[in-house]
Amino acid sequence: MSSIPKIVILGAGYGGILTAQRLQKELNYNEADVTLVNRHDYHYITTHLHMPAAGTDSIEHTRVSISKLIDEFKIDLVKSSVQEIRLHDKKVILEDGTLSYDYLIIGLGGEPETFGIPGMAEYAMSIRSINSVRLIRAHIEYQFAMYKNEQRPQERINFIVGGAGFSGIEFVAELADRIPKLCKEYDVDPALVNIYNIEAASSALPGFAPELVDYAVEVLQKKGVTFKFGVAIKECMPNGVILSTGEEIKSATIVWTGGVRGNRLVESAGFETMRGRVKVDEYLRAPGYENIFIIGDNSLIFNGDKPYPPTAQMAMQQGVSCAQNIVASIRGKELRKFEFHHKGTVASLGKGEGIAVVGDKKYTGFKAAQLKKLVDLRYLFIIGGIPLVLKKGRFI
Amino acid sequence: MSSIPKIVILGAGYGGILTAQRLQKELNYNEADVTLVNRHDYHYITTHLHMPAAGTDSIEHTRVSISKLIDEFKIDLVKSSVQEIRLHDKKVILEDGTLSYDYLIIGLGGEPETFGIPGMAEYAMSIRSINSVRLIRAHIEYQFAMYKNEQRPQERINFIVGGAGFSGIEFVAELADRIPKLCKEYDVDPALVNIYNIEAASSALPGFAPELVDYAVEVLQKKGVTFKFGVAIKECMPNGVILSTGEEIKSATIVWTGGVRGNRLVESAGFETMRGRVKVDEYLRAPGYENIFIIGDNSLIFNGDKPYPPTAQMAMQQGVSCAQNIVASIRGKELRKFEFHHKGTVASLGKGEGIAVVGDKKYTGFKAAQLKKLVDLRYLFIIGGIPLVLKKGRFI
Repeated sequence: MSSIPKIVILGAGYGGILTAQRLQKELNYNEADVTLVNRHDYHYITTHLHMPAAGTDSIEHTRVSISKLIDEFKIDLVKSSVQEIRLHDKKVILEDGTLSYDYLIIGLGGEPETFGIPGMAEYAMSIRSINSVRLIRAHIEYQFAMYKNEQRPQERINFIVGGAGFSGIEFVAELADRIPKLCKEYDVDPALVNIYNIEAASSALPGFAPELVDYAVEVLQKKGVTFKFGVAIKECMPNGVILSTGEEIKSATIVWTGGVRGNRLVESAGFETMRGRVKVDEYLRAPGYENIFIIGDNSLIFNGDKPYPPTAQMAMQQGVSCAQNIVASIRGKELRKFEFHHKGTVASLGKGEGIAVVGDKKYTGFKAAQLKKLVDLRYLFIIGGIPLVLKKGRFI
Repeated sequence: MSSIPKIVILGAGYGGILTAQRLQKELNYNEADVTLVNRHDYHYITTHLHMPAAGTDSIEHTRVSISKLIDEFKIDLVKSSVQEIRLHDKKVILEDGTLSYDYLIIGLGGEPETFGIPGMAEYAMSIRSINSVRLIRAHIEYQFAMYKNEQRPQERINFIVGGAGFSGIEFVAELADRIPKLCKEYDVDPALVNIYNIEAASSALPGFAPELVDYAVEVLQKKGVTFKFGVAIKECMPNGVILSTGEEIKSATIVWTGGVRGNRLVESAGFETMRGRVKVDEYLRAPGYENIFIIGDNSLIFNGDKPYPPTAQMAMQQGVSCAQNIVASIRGKELRKFEFHHKGTVASLGKGEGIAVVGDKKYTGFKAAQLKKLVDLRYLFIIGGIPLVLKKGRFI
């Protein structure tokens, strides 16, 4: 019976993987037991999901087997789904067992926020996992196949993307790249296909400078995207949407990217949350729990009076910080406050196009697209070194 | 105003294409007007459809643009759908016009025969056109995507093929080759997937020698196909079938290959038909009409007291013969009786496997698979020469 502390990490997303890797590196032999729990045996690169969702890239470029990222001699991997977090018992209930912890890191990721829009949860798909993007890709192709076997119903070749934030825009760009290929494969006149991007806010890509937003919108309009800004989806139906303007758009394909919230497991554990997110302390700990760290989409950190948007960049930095603080805590050392270093933002706009901000500098077009690839390659390097870059990287 | 005879060919299948090509070759300049009517601007290789249906080959290997096969200076191509054949007016009504004829060649192809099995027409798919096989392929992949996004319902990964005749067996073999790839792509344990082949007759592949049938069944069982012989499908539902034994099999994918009949357009034209097929005279003419030739799946020719099965081989030979007889008829020469020369039969059983009969010789395995490829390449050569063989041929 070991009396060394038990560290349990829930979720192998950006935050969880970085925490696990950093713990693996910094902990000495027998200094702690570390267990990483994840629903799948793979880690996926969420910021890349828009590509396999549209069918412009393979899912194999989007996921990595966790066993390739973690040394299983040092960290136990448990492939299971978390059912409940019992704070008073210091236990996590899995679908097929129970884990007790001394330290808990919660990085379970977010869920789509449908804002109670009727029909959205039932009829819209979302870009949130390998399985969900497989469905979106297969669904889109199925619409073309059905279109050619039915009396050419327009709803089969109208595509609606709800939300023009980061993931909405990145997905709509890939979709615009993919549609001409599907049209060719299924003998459909591209002029008949419509891609609608509907956004309740008055413009796309909040947080980007207006000239970059304009650039992005223009690029996508040229690729055939119809934007509707300042228009909300009022209702979602199996065969279309009703907009706040009263207009109805027929479509058998609705992809919702309009909102992300935290995790119901975090809410039901009893933490105080805002839309499923816990406002963590300066060390990334849940208020009132010195041994529980919350990271990634489950955490909420304010930048002045506005919360930071939950990004991969944020989750990765949190992962490193919380691992360092857990090691410090075990060793009785002083904890270090978390500070977010914003390194820039890149949005891809399909093949060879993008927008980017790095420091004061703004980039558009090919340079931004190259930067996006660099960011992706850098991430692969961080989690898996050169071998992973060579195996999963997209250079072209 | 020309007074030269007008020849109209309905359908650019095996029979129609061969008729058109032979007329093009044999007719002198201004000897006749020839018009070829087809619903699509491409000809497709029906005996190859089972591959793109399963997703083991591209549809581009399965179709050829008609304009590549026909000299449009000599033959008019009309891309349209035939609505009605008016025998008394010597007119064909198209969806967007009318054609009058002096000679008519009907090669419109067959339709699936569902034998009135409830639900079959509504819920089963069939391998009969480029569009229908695109749907089958997309549908199968969609089931895997849905399976991973639902609570793993077995009906999503049960696949039912009705009929163990030629096309049923060839399709089920390709499906068995395709499933392991889909399982890999969608992380599904192949052991969970079921492929059922259900046949009312007591065995598969009527017409083949019993030892070849046994060989084929064994090959496919090893690939994971479950056969049910002597069992009829009693009813088809959106999520499965009920068998004559009372057994119910859950499946969201039912592909019906159990029967082919002639064409409703031929029936409604007023010809005497048996299941949509016209028993033609020894010159391939419809009884009572010296100027109307019926070929391919629309025709019925007896071999003793049993009809010949409608095959590509039969249609091709009919096409050549009816073109020769039309030319002879225009020139006031004597017509030649049609005689079918059976050159052998090859059934593919997926990658590297097959069975074949050529004369007295029987082949199995790799040799039969090579023979199948040879037959395919020979067909491409016949209709398009070396350039088409190089463009569309599958050598590996």
